[in-house]
Amino acid sequence: MAHESHDVGDLAGHMTGDQFRARGERMLELIASYWQTLDSKGSPPVMCDKGPGWLLERLPAAAPDAPGGTAEWDAIFSDIEQLVIPALTHWQSPNFYAFFPCNGSYPAILGELLSAGLGVNGMLWATSPAATELETRLLDWMARAMGLPDTFLSTSPNGGGCIQATASESTLAALLAARHRVRTTRDLGPHPEFVVYTSTQAHSSVAKAAMIAGIALGPEDPHIRMVPVKADGAMDEPALARLVAEDAAAGRVPLMVCATIGTTGITAIDRVDRIAAALEAIPAWCESGAWIHVDAAHAGALMLCEEFAHLRAGLDRVDSLCFNPHKWMLTTFDCDLFWTRDRRSLISSMSINPAYLKNEASESGAVFDYRDWHVPLGRRFRALKLWFVLRHYGLSGIRAYLREHLRLAALVEGWVRDDAAFESCADRTMNLVVFRPRPHEGADAAAQDARTKQLMDAVNRSGRLYVSPVVLPREWDKTKRAHLAGRLAIRMAIGATLTREHHVRAAWEEIRRAASNRQP
Amino acid sequence: MAHESHDVGDLAGHMTGDQFRARGERMLELIASYWQTLDSKGSPPVMCDKGPGWLLERLPAAAPDAPGGTAEWDAIFSDIEQLVIPALTHWQSPNFYAFFPCNGSYPAILGELLSAGLGVNGMLWATSPAATELETRLLDWMARAMGLPDTFLSTSPNGGGCIQATASESTLAALLAARHRVRTTRDLGPHPEFVVYTSTQAHSSVAKAAMIAGIALGPEDPHIRMVPVKADGAMDEPALARLVAEDAAAGRVPLMVCATIGTTGITAIDRVDRIAAALEAIPAWCESGAWIHVDAAHAGALMLCEEFAHLRAGLDRVDSLCFNPHKWMLTTFDCDLFWTRDRRSLISSMSINPAYLKNEASESGAVFDYRDWHVPLGRRFRALKLWFVLRHYGLSGIRAYLREHLRLAALVEGWVRDDAAFESCADRTMNLVVFRPRPHEGADAAAQDARTKQLMDAVNRSGRLYVSPVVLPREWDKTKRAHLAGRLAIRMAIGATLTREHHVRAAWEEIRRAASNRQP
Repeated sequence: MAHESHDVGDLAGHMTGDQFRARGERMLELIASYWQTLDSKGSPPVMCDKGPGWLLERLPAAAPDAPGGTAEWDAIFSDIEQLVIPALTHWQSPNFYAFFPCNGSYPAILGELLSAGLGVNGMLWATSPAATELETRLLDWMARAMGLPDTFLSTSPNGGGCIQATASESTLAALLAARHRVRTTRDLGPHPEFVVYTSTQAHSSVAKAAMIAGIALGPEDPHIRMVPVKADGAMDEPALARLVAEDAAAGRVPLMVCATIGTTGITAIDRVDRIAAALEAIPAWCESGAWIHVDAAHAGALMLCEEFAHLRAGLDRVDSLCFNPHKWMLTTFDCDLFWTRDRRSLISSMSINPAYLKNEASESGAVFDYRDWHVPLGRRFRALKLWFVLRHYGLSGIRAYLREHLRLAALVEGWVRDDAAFESCADRTMNLVVFRPRPHEGADAAAQDARTKQLMDAVNRSGRLYVSPVVLPREWDKTKRAHLAGRLAIRMAIGATLTREHHVRAAWEEIRRAASNRQP
Repeated sequence: MAHESHDVGDLAGHMTGDQFRARGERMLELIASYWQTLDSKGSPPVMCDKGPGWLLERLPAAAPDAPGGTAEWDAIFSDIEQLVIPALTHWQSPNFYAFFPCNGSYPAILGELLSAGLGVNGMLWATSPAATELETRLLDWMARAMGLPDTFLSTSPNGGGCIQATASESTLAALLAARHRVRTTRDLGPHPEFVVYTSTQAHSSVAKAAMIAGIALGPEDPHIRMVPVKADGAMDEPALARLVAEDAAAGRVPLMVCATIGTTGITAIDRVDRIAAALEAIPAWCESGAWIHVDAAHAGALMLCEEFAHLRAGLDRVDSLCFNPHKWMLTTFDCDLFWTRDRRSLISSMSINPAYLKNEASESGAVFDYRDWHVPLGRRFRALKLWFVLRHYGLSGIRAYLREHLRLAALVEGWVRDDAAFESCADRTMNLVVFRPRPHEGADAAAQDARTKQLMDAVNRSGRLYVSPVVLPREWDKTKRAHLAGRLAIRMAIGATLTREHHVRAAWEEIRRAASNRQP
C-alpha cells in the first residue's frame, strides 16, 4: 500500500477559493437568469417536451478520467444550458399549476447554499449543536404561528418537532411511533393484526408507509382501510368509527388514523375534531394507545391565517401533524415539518441505542438527537433555509403571499362558474380549482373523460401552462355529485412562487382556447 | 374569502434577482472564508465547545412578523458568524478525524446551489426527465468505474441504481426488496418469522431498518442475528451459515444478510465471496429468494482503485450494494449510491401504483420513476453535485486524493507502532488507525478504558483535532486479540477534504502531548 508522497491539494486538484467565488457568481447569474426567463415571454415549455432517452443519448458513456480544468467548467455551464434545462419540467414557472406547488425562493436557495457550504452532519446534537437547536426553535416558532397546541412545543414535557425531508417520511414516522405505543400499551399476543385508517382521498404515502412498516403486503391490502368520503371529499367519520369498532371487535388492532387537511385530489378538509370525537366514543380505541396523525402537507401553510382557524379544529386531540413549507411556503424542496405530542414513543420506535436516551439532557428535553426522529442517521443542516425564509418574508409577508394566491384562485373559480363551456367539479376550499369541460348532452362517462383528457393534454402540450388530473371520488355515486363520481377532472393549483394575476388570466385564456379548438 | 387586490411581488416581497446576486456573492465569500479559516492557525475548536441551550438562549422566542429588509440580511450574515458557526462541530476541518469523514467540496457545493436554484421535483421521470436520466447515467458511470458487476447497470435487464439520501435508507430499501422477493418466491403462511443477519460490527442502521420494517421489535430483538466476527473483525462465515441453517430448519425465514465492507468500528472487511459461498451451500437459502446486501458506505470509494480489487470479490453474487460519495468522495452530504440487480423486487416493494409500472417505458427499463426506489415521494435534483465532482476531479483525481489519505494513514500507523506509549488495536485496512495508550503494567480493564477515554477527551477538548471512540469486538476474547476484547480504543479516520500531511503530523504531536500530560 505504499504510494509516493504528494501534496493533497496538488493531487486532488481542489478548486481554489477564488475559483469557487468566480464559478459561484456564474452559477448565481445562471439561476437568476433562469428564474427571469421562466417569467418572460420566451419561457420554455412548462411541461418538458423531451422524450425518454433524450438526455441519456447526449451524455458520455463513461465518467471522465482526467481532472477538468477551467475549460471543463465552461463545458459544465454550457451543458446546464444545453442539456439539463431543456430536459426539465419547470416547477418554478409561474405557469406551473400541476400537482401542488413546490415553492422555491431566493432566500431559501441561499439557505441551501450555506448548508452545503458549512457541510456539517447534524445526526446528533453534539455533532453540531446549532443544527439541532435552530431546528428545534424554528419548529416552536412555526407551531406558535400556526396556532398548534402547546403540547407540540419542544418545551412541553413530551412534545416537539423536527424537519423531515418529505411528508411521506413524516407519515412513516408517525406510524412507527404509533406501533411502538400500541405495543407498549397493550399485550397484543404474538401476531397482532394492525390496521391503519385513512380516506380514499388520502395521499398514497399512507399506504406506502404501511407497506414499508410491514403492516400491509401491498397498496390494496385490507389492513389499510380506505374510509369513504362525503360529498365534500372529507372522510366520513361514522364510517370510520364503524370500521374501527368492527376491527377491534374482531380482534384486529387499530393502530393509526391518518386524517388529511387538504387532500391531493380536491383539497378536501377532513374534520379532525369530528374524527377525534368519533374515535373517542369507541372504548377499544381509547384503551389502545392508537394514534391520530394529520397530513397537512400542502394546506398547513394556511394555518398561519386567522381566516383558516377552522383548519385547527381538533388538533389538540391528535398525536402528530406534518406540513411542508416546500410546497406553498417558499422553502425550496425538501422541507417537511413534523410535530408530535409524544416524542418518547417516536424516539423509542427508532432509537438503535436506547441506553443513550437515558442521559439526563435527552430525557429532560434539553437535547434532541434528531437521528432518532427519522429513518436516516446523518442529516444536513436542514433549518437554515426555513430560517432565512421566515426572516426575509416575515409571517405577515407569507400571509399576504398566501392570500394573493387565494384571491387568484377565487378569480379562476368565478371564470369557471361563469363559462357555460366548463363545469366546476368541487367546491373550492383553498387555492385549488377543479373543473372539466362541460359534457355534451348525452355523452357517456368514457366520452366525458376522453374530452377532459384531450383538453388537459392540449393545454399541457401548448407549453404555456401545466395542469394535472384527478379522478373524482367514486363514492360520490351515492351523493348529490353522483354524475361526477369516478370522473376525470382537471386540477389547477395556484401557488407557484412567481404566479401573478396576469399569468392566471393568460392561463385561463389558453384553457378556453384549447376547449374551443381555436388556434392560438 | 375576499381579499384586496395586490401584486404578488409587492405583497410577498420576493428578493429581486440583483439582491439575490449580491447576497449570494456575500454567501460565497462567507463560505470561502469559512473553509480558509478551518485550514488556518486561527481555526475554531473542531469539536463544538458550546453546551446545551447556548444557541437556544440567543434566538428570539417567536418568528418575526414583519418582512425583513436589507438591514435584516445584514443581521442574518452577522448571526451566521456570531451564533451559528460558533455552535458547530466542524466536519470540514482538516483536523476532523472522528466517525467517518463527511466530505464537502467546492464543486459539490455549486451542485447543491444549482439543484436548489432549479427547484425541480424529480419524483417521476416525467416531472423532470433530466433529474432521472442524469442520475441513471451517473450510477452507471460509477458502477463501471468501481468494477461492479454488469448486472447492476441500468442497461441490464433487471438492474440499476439511484441516489438515496443515506446508507440507512439503502439498507431499508434492500430489506423491503428482499421481503417482497421472499414473499413472492415462497408460500410463507400467515405469520412468517423473518430473520436478518449482519455482524456484530455492522452499522446500527441494519437493526433500525429491521425495526422500521416490523421485523424486529427493538435493537436487541433476536430476529436480527448479530453474527460474531473473527480476529480481523470480519463476519465469521461458518457462524453465519450455522445460524441461517438453524433458522431455516426451525421454520424461520432467512431474509437478508447485510455484509459490511469497511465496518464503522475498525474498517474490517467482510469477505463477501466467502459469505456468498457459505450461503449457497445451504439449500434452504438458495430456494428462498433471500437477499445479500453490501454496505460499503465508507469504503466503496476504494473500489475505484485497482489495488483494492479484493473489495470486489463476490459482488457478482450479491443483490444490492450501497456506497456514500458524501463520506470520502468529495460529494457534500447527502449522497448515497444504491445499486441492485433486481430492481423489479425493489420497485414492487414500494410502488403504490402497480398499474403504473405496466407502462411500456418503465417495464423496458427506458424510464425509471425513482419515487418507487425509496421512502420519499418527492426528490431534489440529486445528481448534479456528483456530476460536478466527477467532471472537476476526474476519476484519476479522486484516486489520487484517496491514495494520499491512505499514505497519511500509513504514516500514523507507523508512528503508533514505533511509540511505546501507544498500542495499535486493529490492523489497518484503509484510512482508519485504531489505537490506545499502552496500558500500565497490571492495570485492569476498567482502568485501561478510563485512561483511553481520558486521552480522547483531552485531545478533543484541546480543540485542535477531533477523534471518536470504538468498543472493540467482545468476541475477540476467543482470539489472539483477547486482551483487547470489549476494550475502548480511539479511532482516527484520515479522510477530510483538506487534510494534508502537516495536519496529521500536528495531530499526532497533540495526541502524544496529551498522552504524556505535557502542556501545549
